[in-house]
Formats: sequence, structure tokens, C-alpha cells
Amino acid sequence: MAGSTFGKLFRVTTWGESHGKGIGVVVDGCPAGLPLSEADIQPFLDRRKPGQNRYTTQRSEGDLVEILSGVFEGKTTGTPISLLIRNTDQRSHDYSEIAGYYRPGHADVTFDAKYGFRDYRGGGRSSGRETAGRVAGGAIALKALAALGITVEAWTSSIGPVSCDPKVFDREHLAVSRFSMPDPAAEEQAAAYLEECLRSQTSSGGCASCRITGLPAGIGEPVFDKLDAVLGQALFSIGAVKALEIGDGCRVSTAVGHENNDNWDENGFVSNHAGGILGGMSSGQDILLKVHFKPTPSIAREQTALFRDGHVDTVSIHGRHDPLITARAVVVVESMCALTVLDLLMQNAVSTMDKLKKTME
Amino acid sequence: MAGSTFGKLFRVTTWGESHGKGIGVVVDGCPAGLPLSEADIQPFLDRRKPGQNRYTTQRSEGDLVEILSGVFEGKTTGTPISLLIRNTDQRSHDYSEIAGYYRPGHADVTFDAKYGFRDYRGGGRSSGRETAGRVAGGAIALKALAALGITVEAWTSSIGPVSCDPKVFDREHLAVSRFSMPDPAAEEQAAAYLEECLRSQTSSGGCASCRITGLPAGIGEPVFDKLDAVLGQALFSIGAVKALEIGDGCRVSTAVGHENNDNWDENGFVSNHAGGILGGMSSGQDILLKVHFKPTPSIAREQTALFRDGHVDTVSIHGRHDPLITARAVVVVESMCALTVLDLLMQNAVSTMDKLKKTME
Amino acid sequence: MAGSTFGKLFRVTTWGESHGKGIGVVVDGCPAGLPLSEADIQPFLDRRKPGQNRYTTQRSEGDLVEILSGVFEGKTTGTPISLLIRNTDQRSHDYSEIAGYYRPGHADVTFDAKYGFRDYRGGGRSSGRETAGRVAGGAIALKALAALGITVEAWTSSIGPVSCDPKVFDREHLAVSRFSMPDPAAEEQAAAYLEECLRSQTSSGGCASCRITGLPAGIGEPVFDKLDAVLGQALFSIGAVKALEIGDGCRVSTAVGHENNDNWDENGFVSNHAGGILGGMSSGQDILLKVHFKPTPSIAREQTALFRDGHVDTVSIHGRHDPLITARAVVVVESMCALTVLDLLMQNAVSTMDKLKKTME
Amino acid sequence: MAGSTFGKLFRVTTWGESHGKGIGVVVDGCPAGLPLSEADIQPFLDRRKPGQNRYTTQRSEGDLVEILSGVFEGKTTGTPISLLIRNTDQRSHDYSEIAGYYRPGHADVTFDAKYGFRDYRGGGRSSGRETAGRVAGGAIALKALAALGITVEAWTSSIGPVSCDPKVFDREHLAVSRFSMPDPAAEEQAAAYLEECLRSQTSSGGCASCRITGLPAGIGEPVFDKLDAVLGQALFSIGAVKALEIGDGCRVSTAVGHENNDNWDENGFVSNHAGGILGGMSSGQDILLKVHFKPTPSIAREQTALFRDGHVDTVSIHGRHDPLITARAVVVVESMCALTVLDLLMQNAVSTMDKLKKTME
Repeated sequence: MAGSTFGKLFRVTTWGESHGKGIGVVVDGCPAGLPLSEADIQPFLDRRKPGQNRYTTQRSEGDLVEILSGVFEGKTTGTPISLLIRNTDQRSHDYSEIAGYYRPGHADVTFDAKYGFRDYRGGGRSSGRETAGRVAGGAIALKALAALGITVEAWTSSIGPVSCDPKVFDREHLAVSRFSMPDPAAEEQAAAYLEECLRSQTSSGGCASCRITGLPAGIGEPVFDKLDAVLGQALFSIGAVKALEIGDGCRVSTAVGHENNDNWDENGFVSNHAGGILGGMSSGQDILLKVHFKPTPSIAREQTALFRDGHVDTVSIHGRHDPLITARAVVVVESMCALTVLDLLMQNAVSTMDKLKKTME
Repeated sequence: MAGSTFGKLFRVTTWGESHGKGIGVVVDGCPAGLPLSEADIQPFLDRRKPGQNRYTTQRSEGDLVEILSGVFEGKTTGTPISLLIRNTDQRSHDYSEIAGYYRPGHADVTFDAKYGFRDYRGGGRSSGRETAGRVAGGAIALKALAALGITVEAWTSSIGPVSCDPKVFDREHLAVSRFSMPDPAAEEQAAAYLEECLRSQTSSGGCASCRITGLPAGIGEPVFDKLDAVLGQALFSIGAVKALEIGDGCRVSTAVGHENNDNWDENGFVSNHAGGILGGMSSGQDILLKVHFKPTPSIAREQTALFRDGHVDTVSIHGRHDPLITARAVVVVESMCALTVLDLLMQNAVSTMDKLKKTME
Repeated sequence: MAGSTFGKLFRVTTWGESHGKGIGVVVDGCPAGLPLSEADIQPFLDRRKPGQNRYTTQRSEGDLVEILSGVFEGKTTGTPISLLIRNTDQRSHDYSEIAGYYRPGHADVTFDAKYGFRDYRGGGRSSGRETAGRVAGGAIALKALAALGITVEAWTSSIGPVSCDPKVFDREHLAVSRFSMPDPAAEEQAAAYLEECLRSQTSSGGCASCRITGLPAGIGEPVFDKLDAVLGQALFSIGAVKALEIGDGCRVSTAVGHENNDNWDENGFVSNHAGGILGGMSSGQDILLKVHFKPTPSIAREQTALFRDGHVDTVSIHGRHDPLITARAVVVVESMCALTVLDLLMQNAVSTMDKLKKTME
Repeated sequence: MAGSTFGKLFRVTTWGESHGKGIGVVVDGCPAGLPLSEADIQPFLDRRKPGQNRYTTQRSEGDLVEILSGVFEGKTTGTPISLLIRNTDQRSHDYSEIAGYYRPGHADVTFDAKYGFRDYRGGGRSSGRETAGRVAGGAIALKALAALGITVEAWTSSIGPVSCDPKVFDREHLAVSRFSMPDPAAEEQAAAYLEECLRSQTSSGGCASCRITGLPAGIGEPVFDKLDAVLGQALFSIGAVKALEIGDGCRVSTAVGHENNDNWDENGFVSNHAGGILGGMSSGQDILLKVHFKPTPSIAREQTALFRDGHVDTVSIHGRHDPLITARAVVVVESMCALTVLDLLMQNAVSTMDKLKKTME
């Protein structure tokens, strides 16, 4: 089914695959009157862009975004905003050898099972490149949220065994960090660890954390469209994500009630084990979550793989592959969170008769 | 917005709140020709039903389901199936005292923020009772899946610090287990631990695991409606869930690529770190996942809470409350997984021109 | 697919069939804070109810509605409102003879083609009785619209060859009219015509008109969800509707541009050929439309019909059948218009950043 | 709300406005394995393209379509197909004078009411140019339908007072007809009539007819997503459509039952008053419908219009405007019908357990 659309009121429809002509997104439902230009979107694509250092994919993709519609005289008009990013580096020969087999840890085998064949060039629609469209759409959502006083910030909180010190959050460092880490010391350790991974022809998993601030209480719908439920879909829809934790996350299953509950004092909540969500709706506290990414599946080390003709053989995947997904995915996490939050915020605009009346005045 | 509907082709719309007249669900899009009667649904509701032992809520709810439409001469007709469960035990006076304050760990405060007021009787729509509708709808999905050779089975894998031995899976014991545990020894330990929690006027978190077997490869849609993404929404939409792990889950963030990838040999996959999902589509292996539930927020121990008039005071919540959510939630996990899998399976029916043609013959 | 839900933000999901246990609707997305009780809904069901005179179906259906959820202390809570109407008169033996053949003009043959079998009792899900759920849901929409200053009024404008005089709109007469006609003289003629139809063992078509007042300008979405487009779906979803005209309707195809355009003078629009819709959005004028209903297909006169075993034979359909659909359908027209307009009005609440900000204050 | 998407399983999302950078569509949910190239799409765009004769808009738009994604080695892959048509003729100065007032019969005034401002260049999103995206998407649907044995054909059946003779259907003439008329004699009369309209500085309405053949019985969903209901939305979503008739259309309201019912004989149905739809589902007969278009609102003749500053004055709209919308809209009618029918056909693929099972074999 048509699974390339996300959102109900603020909707993004992404399209494009690695090694096709381009990647893009149509943003439908953006309220009119938001100032918008390519300059608002490009920095987010640049953060996702590979090729900045030896730990990220060595392709020089331009990733230049063009607004094709929906903006007039510098403002959104309320009509769909179409964004286009042309692929400029389509060396499909790089990938021709992988057409014959299913790369371990990749969607090759499942794509074939589903559609009877696949675009074998660089993963096709399952390529990480698909997320460029999300990031472009997410940039618009982030701008709209900022206008409403809401921020979304994600970072790499751990790489393999190396974790950031939660007490160190150096935002200046984060802005220039190779791995999107806010803790310079941890980053240094992580760099050494990734060197070791590369030497061993393998790759590393990692963890991204995200904080949303300024969200009013009551956002999220009580049953199936809970804030955490829609975040669940949003974040597990990012390839390589294998776990999501809200607030205390996995620790809640070993916790006891009187420690897990967030009580109040005169100044408000005294803790935030819940990660800012109660009953699927925002509590007014910061939203806190963690996303676990698996290691890059493309590794130089020999593996055994299934071939399309049915035999199994050893393969070794060479090419330009990050040893780490997390660092570049941080901006995708921000984008998916922004899309989720803005959409639910818009849905909340009609939660009461009083609010509805206000919009008619 | 209208957040009470789940699914695109096989859709459930639930309604009802604790202490209202009843709870129900409309199942729309169920294929015609599935044999169905109340006897297919009731056992699942009985598993969710409280009051069977001292560790679960001491209310005697009948939870008898009535099929109001969509079945003729013992088979589904293709039209909506409406299921009604009357509330028989509506002692709202039990709850009148909580109208004045927001219970810690509950949706009371967020409901008020969203709607300006709330049904304060027993949590209203945010009550665990809401899940009865999901379980009733899920039972139909489970029956349809069974007819297609697919099973969904969930169980309690840990309670507080007590974990089941993964090598012990006693299905006979599971069928009668008070806590939905397949390991009798672990259950005994868990019982002792829960006694201790009750004595300390607190409650315990727990973890549910789920396995889906028989699912063909290729189920799930490549981008936003990935199998894991829709499971993410489905499972985080269950109140009290704070973390979801697919396959190896959180462990992937500390793993290396050559260990995390699932390779092949002549017999197929040699491991299942991915939990049966690659690129958001089923791989043909078992789907494996874990869901972490927070401790029951209603506890007898004194807590500080915010009152509607703005002051903060200590409260102590008495009444019929489980010290554990997980055990009764296991059937809800099965239901949500079944609803997800059947819906995506139906979406997959039109993934190729060949499949579409087959349905026209 | 799940085709029993209408609306995006204000959503109704209807269920039930003729001769099942009941009929109902779940209204999801109704803003919180709307005063509501059964007394707001029952009068609309009574208008749809058969059995009031010899020209409408001679069954005594109680059609008593019960609110099962979503209302607390007399106000909507924002959660789903479930409405139940038990079928009280299920004499299925009346219909047993028609199980063997496909009634001309009915959905019998198409239901069988789609699902492989059908509920042959009284048309099942395709019975006019299905509209009771729409009317119950529509009554809530009408109440919400009234609170916002918007009215929806439909009436029978013609029956067979008999048309109301457009200059005569006797609202008092309309309230008690057997055929929902605002012109007493036309009604008398129509009565004579229907007598003649009954004598000839046949039935009559008719036309309903509808006017929506008080709708602000700008309601409706520019492309696929135009106000007239959603009205198109809404009104053609009523069984027996074969044509819809907006404003001047069919006459526009023979008109010339300078007569068809609605010009302005100092007091606003000088005409309303467009029926209050320009580019799919309301213009602030009254919305005007006409719906053409076919004659009741169940007639006593002999017809040739296909039997399930493949032979063709003459049949004669006896039983309690209106010779006219239009009169009872008028309230269904109002309901579908109200559901459409309220949903689009709610969607419009987030059309600009300014409106969205207002709802956050 | 996001109203630029049409369809549930086969979904098109259009974007773009007159005088922006381009127009496009994302087709999501197209089954994999359909042969497709630009050559399948371009002929349909050429039929919609203006500038071919003096009766259609005198702009030379290239309207060249480019497939950006979703096709690999000449076949659809199952992933979204993005189509781009660059605008090549953006002489916005042509339109600068109309920025100050609301053109009669246009969406100018309603756009402003909705969004607070508008793209005043050539109608923006409400321009007829928006339909290029629909036609491009529709061409893909038409190709898929053809592969399933289903055809969709529309034509101009009347222009102003001139109607085609229903007995004359010259398909060769239709292919080259200036006005998409299958009756050469009527076309000649229509040409004379349009000359007269142009001399009188006015324009003409017209009527398009459409026939769908080869559609199996049972397509369409029983309640809100009836085949005629979805066609209703589809066709009223085309700008300038003011009436839709299915089968006998408006005539049913003056008909009697025994004439309106379609009876059977040994060879099947003996008539097709219903236009091939019973109870919202296809009957296996041809689907027949008529769409009434209003006259082009842009006319040279003086009219009175409202200015943005509130005063009313006479205006005269010059420029390149067809005196007739219908002729170029015929291909849009085909497109919208094709999108509707294919989507409902795909939905029908899961209407029974037997069909669902077939797709799993």
C-alpha cells in the first residue's frame, strides 16, 4: 500500500531512491503564512550529507534542495510544497556486483520477496538516501515549531561501548562534532573505537537521544494516536532503528511504582521518569527519548550470503560505507520528531469547541 | 483528532470508557467468509479480565461480548462487525475522591489540559479498560491470521528483577499462569516479589515478549509503514508501555556489524538478531519483540499530587489495583500485533500486478 | 476495504444492517464541551423513521437511540461517542423468499458478486435502514454547527412530475409535511400522484434540495477535498441518489459565461449561480444543492429477475415499501451535508499559522 | 488540511500552481511490474495541453513529463513514482493587473478568505493547470487498468445548446476532434456557436460523458466509499464541474420504478438506467456518467468585481482564455475516473478470505 506518506494534517509524501534521478518530498497541509526559502532547509540536508570526514560515506553528494511550489513572495501559501533534490553522483556501476545476491542485514531479500524484483543499485528505496526527503520536510516542520516556541534537538549519546557523560552537554561542540556528540571527551574515545572497527572490517551501533522543549500540555490523542505511539511509528520507520525508549524506557520494567511515578511539588513536577508523556499526551515537561541504531550492515569483512539463484556463498562488501549510522541519523530523528509533534499539535487545534470557535473569529 | 481508529484495510475503531455504559469496537474491512461467533472472542477477553487472583484487580467484570452486526449464518459478511461489552460494575463512588486531584503517573492532568475537563471516574478513556475493545477486535484478527497459518503469542518474560529462563517455555503452564509466564520457577519468584511490593504499598514493572510465526516474507511497506514502524505505533499506543525492542533491541547500539548481521547457510538464516524484519519488511523468520511496561501508577503509598485548585498535597490511592500491569497486558500485546500484521498482510495483497490479477480471476 | 467511515477530523463510522441486532455509529473527533443528550438526536431519527403514514414503510420501528460513551455530565468529552439503536422489528421471514433471486434495482446482485454471499434479509447493509446511523451522527454535527451559527436545511422539492413552487417556502408546513415539502399545494398534488403510482404497482422518483447558511468563506480544500467534492462523495453515498447539482447544476452546460458568473455590487454578490462555492471553497453565500433520487426499486408490479441458480423468471415484490424514497431521505441529506461541512470547517482551523497560534493561547 | 492526495491504495498527491516552477504528482501504491515510460504518459498530457487551435488557450506550454523515481529497467518497482512537468511559459506580467481584484467566477476571493493572501498569478493552485498532475497520474492508472482489461473513455457530448447525436460515435473523428466530440456534424455546429460566443465576448458551458468498460461486478464499497460516491468526489474535485449524473441521472427523479429498474433476461440485463452501479458497486455493465462544466469564467465582456480594497468596479479580463472548458477537461474526466476505479479495484482485492489467500500462494 501507499506507505510513503506520514502525518494526517501536516503530511509529507517522500519519493525517490538511491541512484535514481533524485529524491524529494511533497509537504501538504503546511499552514499559510510561514516565511520559507531554500536557506531554511539546506542546513538540515547538509547535516545529513555524507562525505564530511572519513567516518561518513565518501560520496560527494550536492544535496541541493529546490522549492518547486507552495511558496509565494517568501511565504507558504497553504498549498503543497514540493521539494526536489537531484541526485548528482549516480555511479551505479559501484553496485552492479551486488545485484546477484542479498546483502546480509539489508532489505535486498525482503524487497525481492515483496515485489518480485528490486532496484539493486545502492539499496534503491531502502537506501539511507531516502531520508533526505524526510529531512527536507522536517526542516519545514522545525521552522513552524520554532515559530510556536517549540524546539527539537537530537544528538548521539553513545557509540558502541562509549557513552557521553550526561552531565556534559557542550552545545558549541555539538554543532561541529563529527559524530553529533555533545561530549568532546566521549567523541575522542568514540573516534578511537571506530578506527578499531574499520581496522577489523566491521561497524558499530550507536544510540541517539532527543529532547523536545516548549510543547504545551495535552498534545497527542488518547488512544491509537498517542504522542508516544506516533513517535513510535515515526522513529521505527527510520531504517536501522531496533529500539525506542521514552523517558526511563527499558528501566521501567525493573522499577517500582513509587519511584517511577513523577510527583509534584509547588514548582511542578519533581522528576521526569515519564519523559514528558502521560496517557499518550504531553505533560508540559520536556519530551525525552532514546533511539538505538544497529551497526551499518555493509562491512568489508567476509560474510555468507544468499544468492538470487539459491546458492549461498561468502561475500565481502566494499565501497563507501560509514562504520556508523547514528551520527548522520541524528538529524533524521529530529525531523521525524518534528513531523510528529507538529501534526499532533495541529490535530489538537480542534480538540474543544472553544478552540474551534477561536479559529472562526 | 479522531485517534480511535487503527489500521488501513483491517480497521478497528474502539470506543468507551471506564464507568460508562460499556466498551466496544467496530471492525471494518474484515474479509467476508471468516467463520465467527462470540465464542471466538470471549476467551481473549477472559484473559484480559481482572479479578482472577489477588494480584489482579479485584473487580468482577462480566466482560461478555455481543456481536451486533457483520456476521450472518456464522460467517463474516464483509461489512462492519460491531462488538459490545456492557459495563456491569460501575461503582463510580469508588472514584469520586480522585476528582479533585491529578493522580501521579496517570493521564488525569493531561486529559484536563487537552479538553478542559475530564471524566474522572476511573480514568475514563485512559483506563486500562479501554483495551477490552482492542482485545475483542484483535481476537478477530487472530482468527483470520490463524486461517492463513500465522500465529501470534505473547508472554510475560520478566517482572521487576525476576526474569524467565529463555530456555524454559512451558506452554501448558503458560495457559494457566497467573502472570502469563511460561517458566513456573520464575513465576514463583515473581509471586514472592509482588507480595513484597504489596507489603511496601508499591507496584512493579514488567516485560512482555512476543513471537509471530508463519508470516511470509515481504510484509510491511518500505518507508513510513514499515512492519516495525506500525508495530511501534501499535505497541506504544498501549498505556504504560515505555520501551519497545525489535529483535536484539537496545543491544544493537553496542554491537558490531559482523555480529549483528544475520548471515545465511544452506538452511536459511543462521541467526535472528533482526527479529525477523529487514528494511521494514518481514524476512520470513519469526518476528520477535519485547515491550517494557511501567509499574502500576495507582499505589497505596503516600505521594504528592497536584490538585485542580492548584495546591499540592499528599495523597494515597486505595482501591482495587493490580500491582502489575504486564500480566493482563500480554493479551493486549497479542491483539495489537495481530491487528498490525493482518492489516499489512492485506495491504501486501496489491503489491504487484500479478497478485492483483490473481484476485480478479 | 473499510468503507464505513466518513470524515477526517470529525469522523463517523457506521455499522449494522437491516434485520441484525441493531444499527449504530461511532462519532470520533467531536470537540469537547458540546452539550449533548439523547434528546438532541432522537428527533432526527424520528424524521427518518418509517411508519407514519401510508406512503412510508409500514413497519413500527422504535429507533430509540442510546448514547453509550463520550458524554460526561451532559457534555462531550472529546472521546468517541458511540450510539446504539436496537432493531426491534426483525421479522426476517418477510424476506425469506427473496433469498433466491436478485431484486431488480437492488444491491443484491452486486453484494453477491463482491462477497460470494450476502445477508438476504431486507437488503442487509445496503438497506435504507443503514442511514439511521448517519442521521444519528449527523444530529451531533448539526448541533455543533448550530453552536457555530450554521444551519443546514433540506426538503423535497419535487416528486415525479410535481414540483414545489420555489416562491412558496412554508416552514411551518414543512415541519409537519408527510413528504417533507414546503409547498402545501404541491404536496396535495404529489399525494394524488403517489396514489396513482401505488395503484399502478409502481413507485416514484423525487428530488431533494438543501440550503446551508452561515458558513464562513474559505471552507473546503483547494484540490481533491473541495467542498463540492466532499459533498459529492457524501451525497452519492446515499443509496438511490443518481444525480447531484450544485448551484445552477446541469443548467451551466448550456449557459454562457457572462450570465453564469456571479458579479458583485456594493452589497456583495448580486446572484448565486455558483451555489456558494468557488474553486471548491465556500464564498460566504448560501450553499445550494439538489439531489435526485430514483424511484423505490421494490415494487409490486411483475418484473423479470435473475435467480441465484442462473435462470430468469418473473417476480413480484410484496411487503412494506414506500412508493417514494425522497421524503424520508431529506434528513439523511441534511446529515451528510452537516458531516461534510463540520469536518471541513475543522480542517480549516489550521489553514494559517495565525489560526494555529490562536488555538495555543 | 492536506487535500492534495486522492485514493487509498493507489494514491496520487499533486502539487504545483500556474506560474510556479512546475507541476507534478507523486503516485504511491502502484503495483510493481507494470511496464512504464514517459511515452505512456505524454500523450495524455498532450490532449490536455492548450494552444492547439483558436478555441483553446493560446499558450505554448511544453508540458513535457519526466519520471523521477519508481521505475527501474522499464517497470514500476512498487515504490512512489514522481512525475515532474516544468513550467516553461511563466509570463506572470500577463496577470499582474488581476492582483487587485477578485475575478468573477474564480477562486480568487475564496483563496484570500482562506489563507489571508494568494498567489495571484494565473489562479495559482486553482488554475486549470493543476489538472496536469492528475492527468499524468491518471495515465498510469489507465495503463494499469488496460492491463486488467478495463477501458475508460470520455468525450464532449454537448457544448452550449449543441448536443452530439447519441447514435453517432465516430471514434476516428474523436481522436482528432478539436472539441473532443465524436459527432462531426455536432462539432461543426459547436464551432459556429463558439465563434458567436467569442464575438459576444463570452464563453460556453458544456457536458462531458464517460463510459467505463470491462469492470468486473462488485467494485466499490457498500457505504461511504460506494463507486458512485468516490466518483462523486473525484469529478466534483475538477474545477468548473457543477453537476454529475450517473446513468439516467436527473431523469430518475421524474421516473417511475418499473421503468427505472433494470430487469434481466437470458442474456443478462436488458437495460442500463443505473449506469452500471447498484448499491454503490459495479454490476458488470458499463459505467455511464455525465459531467456538466460551467462556462469559462474569464471573459472579455465587462463585469463588476470586488477589489481587495473593498470597492466594486467594472473589469474586463483579457488574455489567452478558452471560450470552453469541457474539451480540454475530457482527459481530466478520464483520469479521475481511472484513479477512482483502480483504487476501488485494489481495495476489492481483500474483500474475501478466499481472495486474500490467493495473493499469498
